[in-house]
Amino acid sequence: MYSVSIDLDRRCYDICIGRNIDLVGAILASKLSAGKAVVVTNAIVGKLHQDRIVAMLEEVFEEVLVIQLPDGESYKTWDSLNHIFTSLLNWECDRKTVMFALGGGVVGDITGFAAATYMRGIPFVQLPTTLLAQVDSSVGGKTAINHPLGKNMIGAFYQPRLVVCDLNTLETLPIRELRAGLAEVIKYGPIADIGFMEWLEGSVDKVLAKDSSALAHVVQRSCEIKAWVVSQDEKEAGLRAILNFGHTFGHAIEAGMGYGVWLHGEGVAAGMVMAAELSRRLGLVDAAFVERLTALIARAGLPTKGPVLDAADNAGRYLELMRIDKKSEGGEIRFVLIDGPGKAVVRAAPDALVREVIDACCG
Amino acid sequence: MYSVSIDLDRRCYDICIGRNIDLVGAILASKLSAGKAVVVTNAIVGKLHQDRIVAMLEEVFEEVLVIQLPDGESYKTWDSLNHIFTSLLNWECDRKTVMFALGGGVVGDITGFAAATYMRGIPFVQLPTTLLAQVDSSVGGKTAINHPLGKNMIGAFYQPRLVVCDLNTLETLPIRELRAGLAEVIKYGPIADIGFMEWLEGSVDKVLAKDSSALAHVVQRSCEIKAWVVSQDEKEAGLRAILNFGHTFGHAIEAGMGYGVWLHGEGVAAGMVMAAELSRRLGLVDAAFVERLTALIARAGLPTKGPVLDAADNAGRYLELMRIDKKSEGGEIRFVLIDGPGKAVVRAAPDALVREVIDACCG
Repeated sequence: MYSVSIDLDRRCYDICIGRNIDLVGAILASKLSAGKAVVVTNAIVGKLHQDRIVAMLEEVFEEVLVIQLPDGESYKTWDSLNHIFTSLLNWECDRKTVMFALGGGVVGDITGFAAATYMRGIPFVQLPTTLLAQVDSSVGGKTAINHPLGKNMIGAFYQPRLVVCDLNTLETLPIRELRAGLAEVIKYGPIADIGFMEWLEGSVDKVLAKDSSALAHVVQRSCEIKAWVVSQDEKEAGLRAILNFGHTFGHAIEAGMGYGVWLHGEGVAAGMVMAAELSRRLGLVDAAFVERLTALIARAGLPTKGPVLDAADNAGRYLELMRIDKKSEGGEIRFVLIDGPGKAVVRAAPDALVREVIDACCG
Repeated sequence: MYSVSIDLDRRCYDICIGRNIDLVGAILASKLSAGKAVVVTNAIVGKLHQDRIVAMLEEVFEEVLVIQLPDGESYKTWDSLNHIFTSLLNWECDRKTVMFALGGGVVGDITGFAAATYMRGIPFVQLPTTLLAQVDSSVGGKTAINHPLGKNMIGAFYQPRLVVCDLNTLETLPIRELRAGLAEVIKYGPIADIGFMEWLEGSVDKVLAKDSSALAHVVQRSCEIKAWVVSQDEKEAGLRAILNFGHTFGHAIEAGMGYGVWLHGEGVAAGMVMAAELSRRLGLVDAAFVERLTALIARAGLPTKGPVLDAADNAGRYLELMRIDKKSEGGEIRFVLIDGPGKAVVRAAPDALVREVIDACCG
């Protein structure tokens, strides 16, 4: 087992990465034993992993309860959250109850937000079962639900007490989801570690074949980079925003297509190409780098072009959707751009140039 | 103007107390100028104070928007919260938008929780207009909405950036609400400052007559005590729980009667008598102190006896309601008890003794 620590003032926690991780030992080491444990999962993940996890938790907790949500981003809503609250209250869960998010990004985000706000905050543990969640969403404390007018608009920065990335759970992950998770892995190279991008260029086929040591390196290095960024800037006042490389365009794609049509990672993949192209047109990076990044994204089996969201005024529709992004300020869209390979910068760009990029990179 | 500082690590903020406070100056001093300000209020308070506040805010912000909620605890719900979120999104409010809670505890709690969770947190300012809010709920960062199964069950610890207690707003406060606010003032004596209780015994009539300097002292001293307690223990891991003196019984009264039938302060008043009586029966305080506290509560025009919630098994109904209190642990009710005048302790008590107290103090 490999372990990465997140250091946030006095709230330090571990990310355990490996196979056959001793969950009981990790919980005891994090001083999380209590009366009740509540596992939140979805029907698909629950079927695969729930019995094993519950059996382990029963060694540490007096009572282990399970909440199964329907699967999918479209259920990351107030209704699902309220279902969790009602269950917790009906079970008389107190402030010492520990919640466990067993699943991908949706389960992690909603469980984290439930833990952040139930009785003003109870401890929770992330048990991510998708590559996306292991390399990105389970680490760093961003929790949220969607609002009909915007994704992740209601949420909190709330750190888990422990993250356990069991690589075994990736065995059953559908290939489309593995590819989508890879988008967030690819992201780390251009913004922070060009050496990691080089390694990926040589290893992407192994990763897609679920080679054990390649997967382990992918999760470890991604968590290390994310942990470093988050420890510099927990609340996204500055540096942390670079983790949203590709996300401004990507969120517009997800929203414009209707959530769930494109997976988050698929939107981010096409969005990274667009953000790299915008960087090039602003003179920050050369064409060779854009081609190199595009090639890696294509080899991962991810889209390199954005969809047409509006046949009449596609760029206008993208701009409209991007203006309600959480990073926008006073209606000005903030883009994460590549300022030379391995370095990111957050800045605005002229609408006309953004339109050119959208026209060139969609369809 | 008098000012109290709350010191929480790196998140220090001021509580300004006085008449005709320079709101513009206070906002500028707190570095809160931005594009948009959103004032949340209710219909009654809005009619009295909204125009004046909006005019001042327009000196600092490019745009000032107002959300009016219906008045009352029964609207401290997800529906009201979602109405705020929808308005913020429709107005394209970004992370720099500053929210202002203009009203009593309900407006403050719901606005604070909206600010805590909109885009994972935006700045907010408390402009409390009731005595209860000025001496208690606007200070310390507790925010929440109610769940059908329990009051304040969904919320966050989220500090305002500034609290402005304008004593002028108390002029129009109905006497019943002034009395209810006094319950939270009376509370500070038994738990932390017996000298303040003595002062109140000599000044309660002046306070009820809205004597200017008496009101100022009430708000100042209450904020000082609360600021001291909260700075010791922001997240209610220990000491902060003493601020809930009278609240365990009080919450049961509010819930049992149906929210809004008894005001929060009225429930707390009767609850303090019950908690004091329980302290006496546990040998922590003498009968003379219980009588003294009961007399002060009576002079404030507040109830000294709890209502009968269930004619068949009143004590059983109270116990049932108290078991879902946020301070309970593993089903064990934690009471804030008086351990000698001016000192509080949090502990459990035998059910049989609690039943005796309820039987003696209700009806």
